[in-house]
Amino acid sequence: MINIAVAQSGGPTCAINGSLVGVFVEALRTKEIDAVFGSINGIEGVIKDNFIDLKRFITTNEDIELLKQTPSTILGSCRYKLKSSTEDEETYNRIVENLQKRRIGAFFYIGGNDSMDTVEKLSNYMLDNNIDIKVIGIPKTIDNDLCCTDHTPGFGSAVKYVTTTVQEIIRDSSVYSIDSVTIIEIMGRHAGWLTASTCILRANGETAPHLIYLPEGDFSIDKFLEDVRDQRAKHKAVVVAVSEGVNLPEDASSETLVDNFGHRYLSGVGKRLENIVRDSMHCKVRSIELNVMQRCSSHICSKTDIDESVLIGEMGVKASLRGETGRVAIFKRVSDVPYSIRVETVSANQIANKEKFFPKSWINEYSNDVTDDAIKYFLPLVQGEINLKMENGIPKHFKIQESILR
Amino acid sequence: MINIAVAQSGGPTCAINGSLVGVFVEALRTKEIDAVFGSINGIEGVIKDNFIDLKRFITTNEDIELLKQTPSTILGSCRYKLKSSTEDEETYNRIVENLQKRRIGAFFYIGGNDSMDTVEKLSNYMLDNNIDIKVIGIPKTIDNDLCCTDHTPGFGSAVKYVTTTVQEIIRDSSVYSIDSVTIIEIMGRHAGWLTASTCILRANGETAPHLIYLPEGDFSIDKFLEDVRDQRAKHKAVVVAVSEGVNLPEDASSETLVDNFGHRYLSGVGKRLENIVRDSMHCKVRSIELNVMQRCSSHICSKTDIDESVLIGEMGVKASLRGETGRVAIFKRVSDVPYSIRVETVSANQIANKEKFFPKSWINEYSNDVTDDAIKYFLPLVQGEINLKMENGIPKHFKIQESILR
Repeated sequence: MINIAVAQSGGPTCAINGSLVGVFVEALRTKEIDAVFGSINGIEGVIKDNFIDLKRFITTNEDIELLKQTPSTILGSCRYKLKSSTEDEETYNRIVENLQKRRIGAFFYIGGNDSMDTVEKLSNYMLDNNIDIKVIGIPKTIDNDLCCTDHTPGFGSAVKYVTTTVQEIIRDSSVYSIDSVTIIEIMGRHAGWLTASTCILRANGETAPHLIYLPEGDFSIDKFLEDVRDQRAKHKAVVVAVSEGVNLPEDASSETLVDNFGHRYLSGVGKRLENIVRDSMHCKVRSIELNVMQRCSSHICSKTDIDESVLIGEMGVKASLRGETGRVAIFKRVSDVPYSIRVETVSANQIANKEKFFPKSWINEYSNDVTDDAIKYFLPLVQGEINLKMENGIPKHFKIQESILR
Repeated sequence: MINIAVAQSGGPTCAINGSLVGVFVEALRTKEIDAVFGSINGIEGVIKDNFIDLKRFITTNEDIELLKQTPSTILGSCRYKLKSSTEDEETYNRIVENLQKRRIGAFFYIGGNDSMDTVEKLSNYMLDNNIDIKVIGIPKTIDNDLCCTDHTPGFGSAVKYVTTTVQEIIRDSSVYSIDSVTIIEIMGRHAGWLTASTCILRANGETAPHLIYLPEGDFSIDKFLEDVRDQRAKHKAVVVAVSEGVNLPEDASSETLVDNFGHRYLSGVGKRLENIVRDSMHCKVRSIELNVMQRCSSHICSKTDIDESVLIGEMGVKASLRGETGRVAIFKRVSDVPYSIRVETVSANQIANKEKFFPKSWINEYSNDVTDDAIKYFLPLVQGEINLKMENGIPKHFKIQESILR
């Protein structure tokens, strides 16, 4: 009998708690596993010995269902970057001590490519020191920019929110008789997957968004204005989808801020393009930032995404029981229609600190739209809705007391 | 036998097409009514003789269901302000001519308080000139700021979107171990109803939003910063809901823009407060603007709102058949629990060009929160979900070809 531990890391998505459910329920049905500990705030909780016994918090079938429809991370998160063990052996010792004193034989880390770096480092340390603690990564990110996997848990729900909302904005933008340009800024600093996914609206007969710009494509203000002018000749209400990370030339991005942590603050591309359009054409212009709603709008999550997120958590546990460590569970697409995937594992070093970009071959020759291959790729990921449990007309969330998460 | 005409006006909501359905289905079942004409772009279509025969577009039961889940206005909209008949009799003559040549005996105008001004002027003109065309107003606005009615069609769906989204942002904002302040800017230039409605999250056990600021309350930057400091002492992740129209002092609103039409551009209160908090405290700060999604997110509409919007459209038709004109259909609340309303009519001049503000008696003594009376008022309006029809994993919308709406 072993115990296991699970932690959540990185930016929120709608599917991280789904993967936690997968780990939890697979542990419940595995006779070799006893307790399931949740580490508070990712790896920080393991370092600080801040765990909760999940079986005391997840006690009913309803809890399981609520977890699947609760966005973000019920165990908190972190952006902690583990140093190498030669630089900071003290921290590694503390991690091992805290895991061992709870007889934890496997640790599951749900996170993005930074977290997979932690999986790689920790698993190597365990192997090098003959410590029998398996370390397994469960991917998640709305950016869909992890290598090796067909797509990432959390992405399909983000696509469903973004495309549903863009369609509603298309309706909203086309009511007046005066001409207008609407610019929708979508998350993706380096990878344009989420912005590109708005193309699936074409499968439902929409002509908009009329222009789609990704960080992976060429971009110039002159070309952008020319594109908008061309579309205005054809449509009264032009709708543009643009990635926050699109390559604006220096002068146009001079309003860029740097946040408290020294990160370049990229939000605002939409607003800057809005000002550029307003300066050069006479029409109503507005920009809309979909902001954090893209990563937390569980009320319109994709059932396919949530089901797959649970599955990949379960498969992570199975992999550890097979003796795997330093591995990350990933999706292989078997077919588009009927849609089918299988879960495999790859070495964490194939994923850690790497990014997967939207294929250039799926961007059109003008760098202002994507091809039909993209529609075929995205469509299966948004299928199905979960039967939301409501309370007082509002989706019910699974919550852990604020004081426990401090 | 008469024909009737219907038009939609003002800013989009999730319920305007619901009221169109109400008018349409009540006409179908009324043997005195033959054709139902839709005027394109509100009263502009009546002036320009731009009508469509709705029975040629709404042909199946599915069309009816799709209309109810399609946001915005399928007939387009306008912001046309009708002059008085003494100033511009030419326009009135054209309206009468265009209605009479189609044997239109009743005209239904779905819109906000500006549109009710049109209802008043037109109905007076008809009466003064002995023209037997009834003019009836059907209210709508997400702002809930119309007089005489308990609430407005469209408001409940906006509340459901806003509160659902704010709850998700609360989850999103509370994941990291570092302290944060999240400021959510909500629509309402003069009336704080929608911002105030976030209080219903308390019924589901949320402590956030920790601070709620409305245009109807007192506001000062010093007091605001003091409030945020107080809340930071109690909560790791402070969430603030603020109306776009909150009374910022002159200097703080110096970034105010004026839009193409000379309207003061009020969006940006959230961003300005974000900068003010960042300048005076060391913590992560962000602002989120819920933008047009507040008025068009039909995918999370309130069934109560949609049902009532259909009902009020039906009751408008009944009122015209009783001989009423220059009247607006409104809701009277009969009881909170069990929730019950009835539809009555009032004279358009009681509603036109007037605003109803959030009651001062429901604002707390510090002007930073609302009382439990507000929760009791708001809760019934968000109850129930409609069974969304999906296509390719995305809500299906009712659409009329772009070329027809030009």
